[in-house]
Amino acid sequence: MSANTYYSAEQHGDFEVYDLGDFVLEGGATLRNAELAYTTYGELNEQGDNAILFPVMFSGTHAAMAPYVGEGLALDPSQYFIVIPNQLGGGLSTSPHNYYGPYHARHFPELSIGDDVRAQHQLLESLGVKQLQMVTGWSMGAQQTYEWAVRYPDMVKRAAPIGGTAKTTSHCSLFVDVFCEALKSDPAWSKGDYDSSSEVQEGLRRMGHVFAMMGVSREFYNQNVWQEFGFSSYEDFLTGLWENWFLPMDPNNLLCMAKKWRQGDVSRHFDGNLTQALASITAKVSVVSFEKDMFITAADCKLEQQMISGSELISIPSLWGHFTMLGVNPDDFKLIDNTLKKILAQAV
Amino acid sequence: MSANTYYSAEQHGDFEVYDLGDFVLEGGATLRNAELAYTTYGELNEQGDNAILFPVMFSGTHAAMAPYVGEGLALDPSQYFIVIPNQLGGGLSTSPHNYYGPYHARHFPELSIGDDVRAQHQLLESLGVKQLQMVTGWSMGAQQTYEWAVRYPDMVKRAAPIGGTAKTTSHCSLFVDVFCEALKSDPAWSKGDYDSSSEVQEGLRRMGHVFAMMGVSREFYNQNVWQEFGFSSYEDFLTGLWENWFLPMDPNNLLCMAKKWRQGDVSRHFDGNLTQALASITAKVSVVSFEKDMFITAADCKLEQQMISGSELISIPSLWGHFTMLGVNPDDFKLIDNTLKKILAQAV
Repeated sequence: MSANTYYSAEQHGDFEVYDLGDFVLEGGATLRNAELAYTTYGELNEQGDNAILFPVMFSGTHAAMAPYVGEGLALDPSQYFIVIPNQLGGGLSTSPHNYYGPYHARHFPELSIGDDVRAQHQLLESLGVKQLQMVTGWSMGAQQTYEWAVRYPDMVKRAAPIGGTAKTTSHCSLFVDVFCEALKSDPAWSKGDYDSSSEVQEGLRRMGHVFAMMGVSREFYNQNVWQEFGFSSYEDFLTGLWENWFLPMDPNNLLCMAKKWRQGDVSRHFDGNLTQALASITAKVSVVSFEKDMFITAADCKLEQQMISGSELISIPSLWGHFTMLGVNPDDFKLIDNTLKKILAQAV
Repeated sequence: MSANTYYSAEQHGDFEVYDLGDFVLEGGATLRNAELAYTTYGELNEQGDNAILFPVMFSGTHAAMAPYVGEGLALDPSQYFIVIPNQLGGGLSTSPHNYYGPYHARHFPELSIGDDVRAQHQLLESLGVKQLQMVTGWSMGAQQTYEWAVRYPDMVKRAAPIGGTAKTTSHCSLFVDVFCEALKSDPAWSKGDYDSSSEVQEGLRRMGHVFAMMGVSREFYNQNVWQEFGFSSYEDFLTGLWENWFLPMDPNNLLCMAKKWRQGDVSRHFDGNLTQALASITAKVSVVSFEKDMFITAADCKLEQQMISGSELISIPSLWGHFTMLGVNPDDFKLIDNTLKKILAQAV
């Protein structure tokens, strides 16, 4: 397999690598010499309690979330020690495409959201973090946020899952299945035995189209909202945003993350009882949903929020739907930043 | 290409065939000796004005709509002369798979909703129909309903488009593109040059999954509603309903219909002005939408309904979403039948 230069500091900005050692996965396999890629911003205080953890979404790296970090923003590095961990399987951490040996590529073991969160916990311990002022993340980042709140209640003061659920819904699983199938439909995928991502470009493009259909609101298409964001046509929006997003990525990495997403479920800590799992959370939880989200709907988010005592629900109305979080619309970005400011300002 | 026994009276019940002669399509090609398959119920009265036209949806035949016809139902053959025309390209009428010669299979010309409606108009003239008490149809049947109301205003007293639009929305076009792409992703499709449908079964199954994702409501999955309808699991619902539906069908037929669907637009009669096109309708229009429809949403239907003077909007709340019309749930069937009864009872 040829090297994929997409997964590099040149493309995503500098990052650190934490050595996880021989990391035993929930599924039973051991990732020997596993590595967790991450970035930090700001300084940890002496008490080790001014940290914020900001895990990332499906197909994303720290680069996608980094714009939310900056002076004057909610995630202000002059005030907080902010850690953005990349996903295992995400391409910069140990992942199918960069992990050589018997677990290489299509032989990479199945991961869980819990694996990510345990790896992050090891990292934070090594950095001296004692308490998290907030865990927040979007989509699969929200899954990790919920996992943190359930698994390490003592460490998490505030949890703000954004456009994501504690347990993947059945309909959302179908969405994951459909986009994985679109990718795997490409004969060049060869059950993961391709030589380079570019060979699988038809599958990656098809996957992009499924995301296009579900990723933003219907109104985004029906009212030609793409015009406001530098796209010259409907076709240009499909190619310029969605195909462009997935084309450089490694199919095995994407499928690895997708499987994690589909299985995401904090209730496994409570024998499948989601009510008990969510009731166990001690953090102040602010559930942020996107009103026009089509695969992790505001209704899905609300159902879970109602099971968390003392929690609040915040709904953001943008026509960008699930992908509001990309902040392509500066107004959306401001709204999300302001939301995070309010959440951080709450006494807990 | 081997014969496809799915497209037969054995599978769909008896039907008549009307000889359209050399039928010139809107796109310019001529279908020589074209045939329109149809069924009728009841008797036409002497004035020729007790007729109801009930065109069919994508991938459907008269068999799918026939349950709505019967004594005591809205579409009562003791009172009305009811005509269910099959779509051109739908498999029983002249279609890619059964039309031999230079336009066979993948060489079949592009059709339009207008072609269907003109063919139906010829048929009705030959049957002696002077006036339609109602045109009603679901999904692509609704597209034909709108086309009738705009093209032949003098003949249509009532128009009841159900879960369909006069102009396909941009988001719905994307849905059509995605399911067509799922079908065409199968290498066995060979740009339409397969020998039998069964060779393309992987593509047909994938297409079924896209329909599964968008065809019923999210709640249908998230609340395991499939349990109430004889499916033993989520997987069984996917295979037993959605794959089973598409597997016997001919891919070229499906793609032919899909293209018609995507291009559906009554505004082409008014230089692209949809407002004018809908304002031209003289029939009493009752727009019926499904509250949980994900690809032809209640909001889409309402937008058009508001452009039609004297029209009404009826919204049906079933968790079956777009596929409420299948009437799998007897309560939905009754609700739709009662809705049609009310529409027919209105003086116009």
